[in-house]
Amino acid sequence: MSNIIGQLFRLTTFGESHGVAVGGVIDGCPSRVAIDIDAIRCDLRRRRGDGMERVTSRHEPDDVEWLSGIIDDQTLGTPIAFMVYNRDAHSDDYQQYRDIFRPGHSDYTWQQRYGIRDWRGGGRSAARETLSRVVAGAIAKQVLSQRGICVTAELDTISNTLTNDTVGGTVRCVVTGAPVGLGEPIFGKMQSQLAAAMLSIPSVTGFEFGEGFHAAAMFGSEYIDRWNSDFTTQTNHCGGLQGGLTNGMPVTFRVAFHPVVTIPQPLPCVDKEGHEHVVEPKGRHDRSHVQRAVVVVEAMAALVMVDNLLMANKY
Amino acid sequence: MSNIIGQLFRLTTFGESHGVAVGGVIDGCPSRVAIDIDAIRCDLRRRRGDGMERVTSRHEPDDVEWLSGIIDDQTLGTPIAFMVYNRDAHSDDYQQYRDIFRPGHSDYTWQQRYGIRDWRGGGRSAARETLSRVVAGAIAKQVLSQRGICVTAELDTISNTLTNDTVGGTVRCVVTGAPVGLGEPIFGKMQSQLAAAMLSIPSVTGFEFGEGFHAAAMFGSEYIDRWNSDFTTQTNHCGGLQGGLTNGMPVTFRVAFHPVVTIPQPLPCVDKEGHEHVVEPKGRHDRSHVQRAVVVVEAMAALVMVDNLLMANKY
Amino acid sequence: MSNIIGQLFRLTTFGESHGVAVGGVIDGCPSRVAIDIDAIRCDLRRRRGDGMERVTSRHEPDDVEWLSGIIDDQTLGTPIAFMVYNRDAHSDDYQQYRDIFRPGHSDYTWQQRYGIRDWRGGGRSAARETLSRVVAGAIAKQVLSQRGICVTAELDTISNTLTNDTVGGTVRCVVTGAPVGLGEPIFGKMQSQLAAAMLSIPSVTGFEFGEGFHAAAMFGSEYIDRWNSDFTTQTNHCGGLQGGLTNGMPVTFRVAFHPVVTIPQPLPCVDKEGHEHVVEPKGRHDRSHVQRAVVVVEAMAALVMVDNLLMANKY
Amino acid sequence: MSNIIGQLFRLTTFGESHGVAVGGVIDGCPSRVAIDIDAIRCDLRRRRGDGMERVTSRHEPDDVEWLSGIIDDQTLGTPIAFMVYNRDAHSDDYQQYRDIFRPGHSDYTWQQRYGIRDWRGGGRSAARETLSRVVAGAIAKQVLSQRGICVTAELDTISNTLTNDTVGGTVRCVVTGAPVGLGEPIFGKMQSQLAAAMLSIPSVTGFEFGEGFHAAAMFGSEYIDRWNSDFTTQTNHCGGLQGGLTNGMPVTFRVAFHPVVTIPQPLPCVDKEGHEHVVEPKGRHDRSHVQRAVVVVEAMAALVMVDNLLMANKY
Repeated sequence: MSNIIGQLFRLTTFGESHGVAVGGVIDGCPSRVAIDIDAIRCDLRRRRGDGMERVTSRHEPDDVEWLSGIIDDQTLGTPIAFMVYNRDAHSDDYQQYRDIFRPGHSDYTWQQRYGIRDWRGGGRSAARETLSRVVAGAIAKQVLSQRGICVTAELDTISNTLTNDTVGGTVRCVVTGAPVGLGEPIFGKMQSQLAAAMLSIPSVTGFEFGEGFHAAAMFGSEYIDRWNSDFTTQTNHCGGLQGGLTNGMPVTFRVAFHPVVTIPQPLPCVDKEGHEHVVEPKGRHDRSHVQRAVVVVEAMAALVMVDNLLMANKY
Repeated sequence: MSNIIGQLFRLTTFGESHGVAVGGVIDGCPSRVAIDIDAIRCDLRRRRGDGMERVTSRHEPDDVEWLSGIIDDQTLGTPIAFMVYNRDAHSDDYQQYRDIFRPGHSDYTWQQRYGIRDWRGGGRSAARETLSRVVAGAIAKQVLSQRGICVTAELDTISNTLTNDTVGGTVRCVVTGAPVGLGEPIFGKMQSQLAAAMLSIPSVTGFEFGEGFHAAAMFGSEYIDRWNSDFTTQTNHCGGLQGGLTNGMPVTFRVAFHPVVTIPQPLPCVDKEGHEHVVEPKGRHDRSHVQRAVVVVEAMAALVMVDNLLMANKY
Repeated sequence: MSNIIGQLFRLTTFGESHGVAVGGVIDGCPSRVAIDIDAIRCDLRRRRGDGMERVTSRHEPDDVEWLSGIIDDQTLGTPIAFMVYNRDAHSDDYQQYRDIFRPGHSDYTWQQRYGIRDWRGGGRSAARETLSRVVAGAIAKQVLSQRGICVTAELDTISNTLTNDTVGGTVRCVVTGAPVGLGEPIFGKMQSQLAAAMLSIPSVTGFEFGEGFHAAAMFGSEYIDRWNSDFTTQTNHCGGLQGGLTNGMPVTFRVAFHPVVTIPQPLPCVDKEGHEHVVEPKGRHDRSHVQRAVVVVEAMAALVMVDNLLMANKY
Repeated sequence: MSNIIGQLFRLTTFGESHGVAVGGVIDGCPSRVAIDIDAIRCDLRRRRGDGMERVTSRHEPDDVEWLSGIIDDQTLGTPIAFMVYNRDAHSDDYQQYRDIFRPGHSDYTWQQRYGIRDWRGGGRSAARETLSRVVAGAIAKQVLSQRGICVTAELDTISNTLTNDTVGGTVRCVVTGAPVGLGEPIFGKMQSQLAAAMLSIPSVTGFEFGEGFHAAAMFGSEYIDRWNSDFTTQTNHCGGLQGGLTNGMPVTFRVAFHPVVTIPQPLPCVDKEGHEHVVEPKGRHDRSHVQRAVVVVEAMAALVMVDNLLMANKY
């Protein structure tokens, strides 16, 4: 498995959806960074989708317990470990999936790879795992803000929900204030790192930066961004990235999410012998998860930016 | 910089476009793999675009010199080092860019990051660097073929060229024969690794797998792939990936390329003081690079697949 | 910082000595390994030195809380997260060190590197951190035992303690049952990995394998190990390692520990201005830590062996 | 295999002893470092042991061919690739070892791990591989010298050679001028990195820093280094390292080498069936390799120091 991301600012996450707890450890966070706990709580509320339409979140406070690395609301430079106990976990709802593979889920692939899986609420593959990313991302954003770098994601497009179906959508993200030259040429281009981070989010099926796929249909004369005399550009078709490095303009990218795969309809599953079983889904399931994913996109982008800020010795 | 890719099958590349040579070192290639040198030459010809429209490649044979790791056309398990000398390099064509920054290129960002750059033919950031990827990818494909895995990329879309402009396009790629369970859950999902590899190719602006961005507009009931009794699926909207792991169906993805940024028109550049200089471009420049990039996409996909085959102990 | 060790079996540790908790996360542990919790408790007791001479351990049970990765005493293949709350922490004993640097400790170097340090009980640099290593090592030993590999460390030498001083000593370790060929040639030699792991243990000042430093005074004709017809050797001067790989004979090495640096005598410390302050030490301090370190050596060796077993696809 | 070392200053080496060439690629060398080619030649002569007693080096100039990364004797920040063709390779001398395993060599372990080996001159496991380390180390020393850091190794002890036998010995190394705080606490301690680097050198059997193994027999009151008012210490028993970080005093360590294992006597080998074959050794073999290894120790120490200088943002 690969539960660690980053080179100098490294996040390790752990936890099954209906296990004892979910959490993470940040290795390499700079020392003496003031940590605003309320800002972290705020991002966790965004992830839970409190008050959002089409969202049915777990009824639990997501209280973060801080285990190490912070003293007097300041980072020590040692590993920052945090966890959230799983309280409102209705494992019984998932008994029906214990011995079958749902369509659109990782039940089958995980079973084949590991020979065992935690069927309770999707275990490690459930979206609950993104909680750890949001906490770490919120810390990353606070490190970035010390250098005037701001990461902001927002809902871009979302379909209308039918009364008995689910939808997906797109999220756009902008990073402003990044100094010129962040990213690593060749295999560590900023767009490579951002793409890998975004595609690691459950349900993401696409990534594009700047003009993205639209650029494939443009002419060179339309695409190139003309210079201003201060080295900014008149347009930003390249999404703030040249040769894999930030060029001082806003870094812009879009992420596509497929619809929620647990649909409010009878699900055609198969058992280990390949026999079909149509199951009436129980448990908590959103009609759309894109709104809740906005803060996850923001978190992953922040983790990438901090790591690159350190790699370029710009912190 | 980050000139190394992979975890167990690791490629290190080197070389400036108009320097002495370009090449690479593969660390971690399995031993006793028969190497077909002609197949490698064939891929190099595809990269050079021999006989393709809208392509003006360098007039040199790209003769690969093998330095280590292969004995009697068989791998030793030791590092496979290879290089190609740069012969037909017209550095003089680039004198005009020595002290200015071209639009759409990495001249400015590299200068800011490193305080120095090889202005000859774009140096390390030129597409010449992809030659090393193609050689390594050709070897990776031969390792994969031993396990019945086949990687095939093809031109998907390309615009018509105006008589004085350049175009981009898209490439699609399919991987067949991959066993179930390749990829690493959470941060090392197969789609994350493929996306990072593709976005590391010069001019790539987007990646999507399966339905990709189109999935964002689908309903859940349309998107989920129904099972067959043999654990294949009736459709393949998910592009052969569930939970970041291969599910036994073909892995499918698309890559977008922006148009060539050196257009056959006067280029508005700026010097270090920010003053504009309009330059008439010299040197070899394609009207389109997408056809030549097809084999690069194939190579990068092969490198990712071999690495994951080893990670999953499936070789 | 570098709080992560291993390539495929990766341990991340966290926690300050007198913070909320210490613990760790194991990423990459094979799935479906039966875990014997009692065996882990046993190793923790060895680390605490219960009943050992010259040892004053903290009066707390070191109850491990398992947060993820294990279900029904079996590994899931997901991250194994564990923690132990710090209960019997007498931070007041350390108030006297708040603004001064002790001799022989990391107070000064950490302050210079991070600009802040947790003065309470040595914070992250205290031996309490080795608790996480012992837990992870105990799990590693259980993975190894599935393949017939056994790691055993024992006290080798220890000086007699004076009534008002501290001592160091040496520990020897033997790994039996390892298959031929574990380790990675060139930079990842088994002895390189073992040495790095051992030197990462607080107070360790030396590592040697086989004849070690004694080999420097031997003649070649004495040193080479003669073959038996079954590819074992008549002697084992090379410590079971040839060319960085295990050769099927027992892997043997020794580790040296310097004496405890908090001596039961007035300590000559300096403050931030460089003025000397002689301090009468308080707090819990062993006269010797070598006996307690035996299980830590065993744990680190086990972590290295498991990682290499996976690297060589021998699990 | 593991032919890559370092995290930010990464060296990849390649080449078999009697293959086409040996060489390496440095990824992550800072840009705009002036490179003194003569100093590199000088270190290569030290490695070849020109004029040294008990040494029979290959009769070839070891001319380094520079392939990339350097322009006008200055680093570009791009990968520095270099190679040396193997000229004076007498492979015929090794025909006798083609189908047998020598004692004290890696013939057997490599055959078991890879199922194939380059029997010509030991292939990848021969000391010829250290040539690449010396070139890279020489560059690393030039980077370090820009920051006033000096790495110096010297012969410490060596036995007298009998007329028909070989000997080993010890090398000591001192690093001066390192700023306070280099190294990574916990698993990346400076002594861990140095130990791993030294144990990766062929024939090395032990590593110790400061008082090393002798410290195990000292009392705490003897071992601790008293402060001076300028934060230097009156003694340097700890070898310049506290808590895994440099403390501003010289970093001192010793390395042990076992004797040359190809002795000038009939060698008792075994074939694949385990039958003994006594062979009269041919080929070039030193009576002692310790003098030639001095510059290799220096090179590996320099590689570790540069990497840590970059990790600590002190370059």
